[in-house]
Amino acid sequence: MRGGPSRGSAMIAIFQGRQRVDSIAGNDRGLAYGDGLFETLRAHRGTLPWWPAHWARLTRGAQRLRLPLPDPIQVRDEALALLDGGDGVIKLLLSRGSGGRGYAPPVDATPTWVLSRHPLPPPVPAAGLALRWCTTTLAIQPALAGLKHCNRLEQVLARGEWDDPLALDRDADEGLMRSGEGDVVCATSANLFANVGGRWRTPAVDRCGVAGVCRDWVLAALDADVGRLAVVEIESATAVFLCNAVRGILPVARLGTRHWSMDPEVVALQRRLATAHPAFVSAAPLFT
Amino acid sequence: MRGGPSRGSAMIAIFQGRQRVDSIAGNDRGLAYGDGLFETLRAHRGTLPWWPAHWARLTRGAQRLRLPLPDPIQVRDEALALLDGGDGVIKLLLSRGSGGRGYAPPVDATPTWVLSRHPLPPPVPAAGLALRWCTTTLAIQPALAGLKHCNRLEQVLARGEWDDPLALDRDADEGLMRSGEGDVVCATSANLFANVGGRWRTPAVDRCGVAGVCRDWVLAALDADVGRLAVVEIESATAVFLCNAVRGILPVARLGTRHWSMDPEVVALQRRLATAHPAFVSAAPLFT
Repeated sequence: MRGGPSRGSAMIAIFQGRQRVDSIAGNDRGLAYGDGLFETLRAHRGTLPWWPAHWARLTRGAQRLRLPLPDPIQVRDEALALLDGGDGVIKLLLSRGSGGRGYAPPVDATPTWVLSRHPLPPPVPAAGLALRWCTTTLAIQPALAGLKHCNRLEQVLARGEWDDPLALDRDADEGLMRSGEGDVVCATSANLFANVGGRWRTPAVDRCGVAGVCRDWVLAALDADVGRLAVVEIESATAVFLCNAVRGILPVARLGTRHWSMDPEVVALQRRLATAHPAFVSAAPLFT
Repeated sequence: MRGGPSRGSAMIAIFQGRQRVDSIAGNDRGLAYGDGLFETLRAHRGTLPWWPAHWARLTRGAQRLRLPLPDPIQVRDEALALLDGGDGVIKLLLSRGSGGRGYAPPVDATPTWVLSRHPLPPPVPAAGLALRWCTTTLAIQPALAGLKHCNRLEQVLARGEWDDPLALDRDADEGLMRSGEGDVVCATSANLFANVGGRWRTPAVDRCGVAGVCRDWVLAALDADVGRLAVVEIESATAVFLCNAVRGILPVARLGTRHWSMDPEVVALQRRLATAHPAFVSAAPLFT
């Protein structure tokens, strides 16, 4: 990595339009307003197996926010250069770039984009995740729902809840979030599936939540219904799992005081994912 | 200004904790998640007359978000140095600072803060502002309501509505925003007061919207009710004005096809503000 602005992050590259630059401008609109989008990609031996799905989602988000997109070939090539044949996680952040004071988006914006490489996430616990309920809710905002945009204070507050020294269930792996209307939506950084009355179901993300890349893969792999999910339905589910593009399928063993044993369908799904995306091989247990 | 990262902004100074730095780190949480707050202050002849109110609001926001605060004396001194005896606008942005990948707020965060100096805003139109309705709504989120935080995609989308070449009323000065439940809340960058049935009223900001510094001044100066305001109430109001800490009191002359003549109470309020905060003298017309 070239010297300078990488404080705290091992490997990072910053661009304005096509040009590599040393740093983020102090008037960047990503910093000022969270005026941007991001993608977090699991890498495998120097490749990004879900690159097309991530780029497609970024493109949809950029259309909704009218953000300028950088050249996809350049972005992918720079990501692969940063990866240098290795494993890990690549984060791509796209901001509208520099702008004056004021909310009006500049008409001739040059996007700022940041690639960073991060270590592999912790392995998926063999026994499954322990979850808790978050009290921070997700606001209903159809104009932003589904997008992986950079307005993430709700997730920051929710994730901070169980770092509080006075919090209950501080050893939880993840927290479930409800919408402002009380429906179950997602975990702080993963989507959610639950088997309710013999059918797999996942919350719709048209009013809040993120349309996850791994969620899309699961929806194509599993015969699941998309709709509203109530708290009581999660608590009466026969199996629950989370998923995201960095950690794959994450079986849930506990939510508060409710326990689940490992579900054969979830194990089978982990195996299918390991076939589709080789980085997730290690997450698939050998037993059924 | 010291060289480097000031692309697009005339005067800017960046700090990490107490230390001046050259640039924003690529892994800054303000950039990643809008994990920060900001204040925009009107300056007058090298002074910041509403500094105590702005710092008090920043402090309240930092408590709610558990953001570390920099030293207030240092921040004010650096802002005054940037101002160098002049007029204009000072923006202070406070971010949680550098952080790894993931929403969990670092426990030992060193805040990043950015001061920038901007030109004076355009003068308040003598005839009053022309407003339009925005279609982008404000989500109901009590956990963030009132704060001047950096999750501002709603305002960016709303302000972008009338830059669209196909938009109606492209010459509007500002746009009014409603909550997701249909109540009138604010303009994209100002608070709102309306005289409805002989009483001044302003929307509550406990479910969405920003608790503006100038709004607080107006609430102390005017016998106004705080509560929910319906669209029909604004349209039947006998007078409407906007306010913010940068432009002061902004009389409204038109909203869509509804017109208002200049209201003597609003003119009197502009004069009171000019006495309280000398930067706003020029905004007070000489007639009544």
